[in-house]
Amino acid sequence: MDIIYMDNNATTKVAPEVLESMLPYLREWYGNASSMHSFGGSVGREIAAAREKVATLINADPGEIIFTSCGTESDSTAINAAIRSNPGKKHIITTRVEHPAIKNLYEYLAKNGYRVTWVPVDKEGVLDLDYLKGNISEDTAIVSVMWANNESGVVFPIDEIARTLRDQGIVFHSDAVQAVGKIPVDVKKTGLDMMSISGHKIHAPKGIGVLYVKKGTKFSPFMIGGHQERNRRGGTENVASIIGLGRASELAISHLEEIDTRVRALRDRLETGLLQKIPNALLNGKKDSRLPNTTNISFEYVEGEAILLMMDQLGICASSGSACTSGSLEPSHVLRAMGVPFTAAHGSIRFSLSTYNTVKEVDFVIENLPPIIERLRKMSPFWKEGACRLQ
Amino acid sequence: MDIIYMDNNATTKVAPEVLESMLPYLREWYGNASSMHSFGGSVGREIAAAREKVATLINADPGEIIFTSCGTESDSTAINAAIRSNPGKKHIITTRVEHPAIKNLYEYLAKNGYRVTWVPVDKEGVLDLDYLKGNISEDTAIVSVMWANNESGVVFPIDEIARTLRDQGIVFHSDAVQAVGKIPVDVKKTGLDMMSISGHKIHAPKGIGVLYVKKGTKFSPFMIGGHQERNRRGGTENVASIIGLGRASELAISHLEEIDTRVRALRDRLETGLLQKIPNALLNGKKDSRLPNTTNISFEYVEGEAILLMMDQLGICASSGSACTSGSLEPSHVLRAMGVPFTAAHGSIRFSLSTYNTVKEVDFVIENLPPIIERLRKMSPFWKEGACRLQ
Repeated sequence: MDIIYMDNNATTKVAPEVLESMLPYLREWYGNASSMHSFGGSVGREIAAAREKVATLINADPGEIIFTSCGTESDSTAINAAIRSNPGKKHIITTRVEHPAIKNLYEYLAKNGYRVTWVPVDKEGVLDLDYLKGNISEDTAIVSVMWANNESGVVFPIDEIARTLRDQGIVFHSDAVQAVGKIPVDVKKTGLDMMSISGHKIHAPKGIGVLYVKKGTKFSPFMIGGHQERNRRGGTENVASIIGLGRASELAISHLEEIDTRVRALRDRLETGLLQKIPNALLNGKKDSRLPNTTNISFEYVEGEAILLMMDQLGICASSGSACTSGSLEPSHVLRAMGVPFTAAHGSIRFSLSTYNTVKEVDFVIENLPPIIERLRKMSPFWKEGACRLQ
Repeated sequence: MDIIYMDNNATTKVAPEVLESMLPYLREWYGNASSMHSFGGSVGREIAAAREKVATLINADPGEIIFTSCGTESDSTAINAAIRSNPGKKHIITTRVEHPAIKNLYEYLAKNGYRVTWVPVDKEGVLDLDYLKGNISEDTAIVSVMWANNESGVVFPIDEIARTLRDQGIVFHSDAVQAVGKIPVDVKKTGLDMMSISGHKIHAPKGIGVLYVKKGTKFSPFMIGGHQERNRRGGTENVASIIGLGRASELAISHLEEIDTRVRALRDRLETGLLQKIPNALLNGKKDSRLPNTTNISFEYVEGEAILLMMDQLGICASSGSACTSGSLEPSHVLRAMGVPFTAAHGSIRFSLSTYNTVKEVDFVIENLPPIIERLRKMSPFWKEGACRLQ
């Protein structure tokens, strides 16, 4: 059975061009970049070339790019660096809708001597910027705000937050894992201090990430060890995956326009089609300020898990809540923060597209999802009750 | 030019069988193991199978295996867990010859409220076990001792240390990055609490590691984030590399005997040949308690870097000091801890073999290294002076 993969915010297909670029480093060029012999050392030059490509994607200098093992490590590294560099400050700010890599780390810090401000979002998932501004203090060590939300796709006002924080001595970090490769991200223009990227969200393999650290930002390593990454991240360089991420960065640049046009049109077609054909379907997330590839729709009075399972039988891959939390049955913390009612949050499905998706795939979903929802609602005690109440 | 790769303690060739096992997960099976759909979920079963294979290699239970991104992360995770689980204890023990992943972390902790005992080694690189035992106290949170040294190859008495520490409420961790796959390692028999493994030292790719955590050991995650690895290590699973490490673990089990016999014989042939043909060449490390693949020889009055460069022109890859520190020109801290004189430590070369090496390669080195040393010594002012002094 062919797979219709619409779960690209969870992970993406490794682009064939990316795998092609990696294979020599998984076969003959297996040397350690730190070695004195040319067999290993030559690999170091390829890492430098990949670093330039990643830097170009976000308009950074190559020296501002630190390779990590994943977005989570990048996030931990950023928060850790900010805290260690400002040992006197005990207040940290983030949002209520962050990825678990930030959310759970902040919760850990909250139990260990830090005061946390959790900035809320409104029912459309839009950040309460005034709340953020009103909570900045001299004791604030770091503000971490994701560039775009993984579940709703809502894009946050990173430029404005950066302007607000400028010259206040507060580190500004953004988890841009969902934004990079989908919308233009320019670190120089925005002027933030640190930013996280994950390779496997942009068609590189799993197990490689990046932390951008603006030149001059006080830094302290999280992964303490060897001299790699100019003493900023110990551990033998993941050569093949770094090379792959370089190639993926080139592809991401070249695909940005297609994502903004063709993929956006696909997403809109999917969204409009489903909302028109399925009653009691609600869009989650502010329509005009979202990632172009993401739509999150609540189908009231049904279970997201049940929808996923029935779509799965047709080869359709999507998500309910973020993939990272879907191991649990709790409603997504993002949708709860948006105030989506319980009966709707449970039935929310996120479709996240990529350049690999087609009109034919979208139309297949538009045709096949409505009967699934109808069948599930017929089995749901809440649906009858709800339908009565709604009419 | 064919490469003669004798730098396997720095990194190893990815075994073709390992790459083969990974490719499906870099091509068609790119799903996120945490996803609800079967496309992603099926990958989770493959991860479970790989976990069993890794567990078998060290005689652990699969639930005791945590996948990380590298040996350095495993080490950081272990030390971090021990410290967070024992917040009242402020004394930590390690050796003077650890890999930078432990050494630099302990140095960081020494500056941040911890008292460190650095256990010395003798001139053969043998650990001073009495010193270790004599420094254990009620305040000791963790003892971390590498299983085998990366530079000298000397194997440490991990079993005896484990016996000593048993039931004392002290966490015992070993960085077994250099031991696993080269000599038998049985965590149940030894009875230690935590142990680090690195994939790229056993013919898996770079960017994957393991932390063994004995069931019942108090644990606190280092990489805080999603629910992966049963809440013990956040971050999307590096599926392909985990699968590859599983395959590499199977190969490692099947190669243990060959390493103990054929590879050991190759190493002995190389060592004996070089020591016989080159004057003023000194073996570093206790001859009868080393890894079977490693030999470290000091060629007095020449620079290791110069030797490496001239060997490099013949395609011979080896190391001076560990690859992780070779970016600097300082003499290796391991050889300094062993009291190797400055003029000898600078001229030390480590050859580390694998099952891919052949007699022909060994004989090529035995034939070609002596004239290199001779030529370099003719250019060295220290050599004439030293030769006079020695006679």
